[in-house]
Amino acid sequence: MKICYEPIGVMHCGIKKPADAPRFYSISEVKGTIEVFAPFLEGLDALAEYERIVVLFHFHLSKGYSLKQKSPSGRVKGVFSLCSPMRPNAIGMSILKLVAVDPPFLSVDNVDLVDGTPILDIKPYKPIDHQ
Amino acid sequence: MKICYEPIGVMHCGIKKPADAPRFYSISEVKGTIEVFAPFLEGLDALAEYERIVVLFHFHLSKGYSLKQKSPSGRVKGVFSLCSPMRPNAIGMSILKLVAVDPPFLSVDNVDLVDGTPILDIKPYKPIDHQ
Repeated sequence: MKICYEPIGVMHCGIKKPADAPRFYSISEVKGTIEVFAPFLEGLDALAEYERIVVLFHFHLSKGYSLKQKSPSGRVKGVFSLCSPMRPNAIGMSILKLVAVDPPFLSVDNVDLVDGTPILDIKPYKPIDHQ
Repeated sequence: MKICYEPIGVMHCGIKKPADAPRFYSISEVKGTIEVFAPFLEGLDALAEYERIVVLFHFHLSKGYSLKQKSPSGRVKGVFSLCSPMRPNAIGMSILKLVAVDPPFLSVDNVDLVDGTPILDIKPYKPIDHQ
């Protein structure tokens, strides 16, 4: 069963290769811009009300995967216990600070995505304890 | 540009149709089981150390989308400001409580996925403020 998607946007930022990316969004101070493609712009309505957004993206530079990998601490763990880009389905999720909405551009902070990353979806971020 | 994935597992639970699903995982008290498919079982190593997991899945019953939709409060908003399953790319994200790991099964709580939902990825959940 194949499930296929098409990008709704693309990341623009100063991180030009994976080795330059912060290890995780929560420790990143990199600013960037998500460009949302023209057919989807109406979908941005009311997004500016949120402080943070969930960004789902495709790890486009990732080739293949291993089920067990070294974590940043050096310990070998299962891939589902890790945020590694080398996953069976190379989908990434980052929670980014939404600084401004100026369609087609979203200014964001805490970026840990490489420049040129295809964006698959954007959702409002709602902290678990504040529903 | 098409990006294609294949399910790594499937959701089993008592929610048999979308109308029966709680509006959001954080308010759900539904328990369920994620079955991880055989080729990916090694990837579960060390997952039991996490209290919550990020589950990415395909809204398999969703047909089409609108860029503006009614929110649960009745207000019309852009799809990227909503958690609606009718999205340009029908990917869902839920943060579920991980009760037990007994491969190939993960017992989970806070389920808001319909029975039979294809699972695309599992990641450890790390609260933003506790990195």
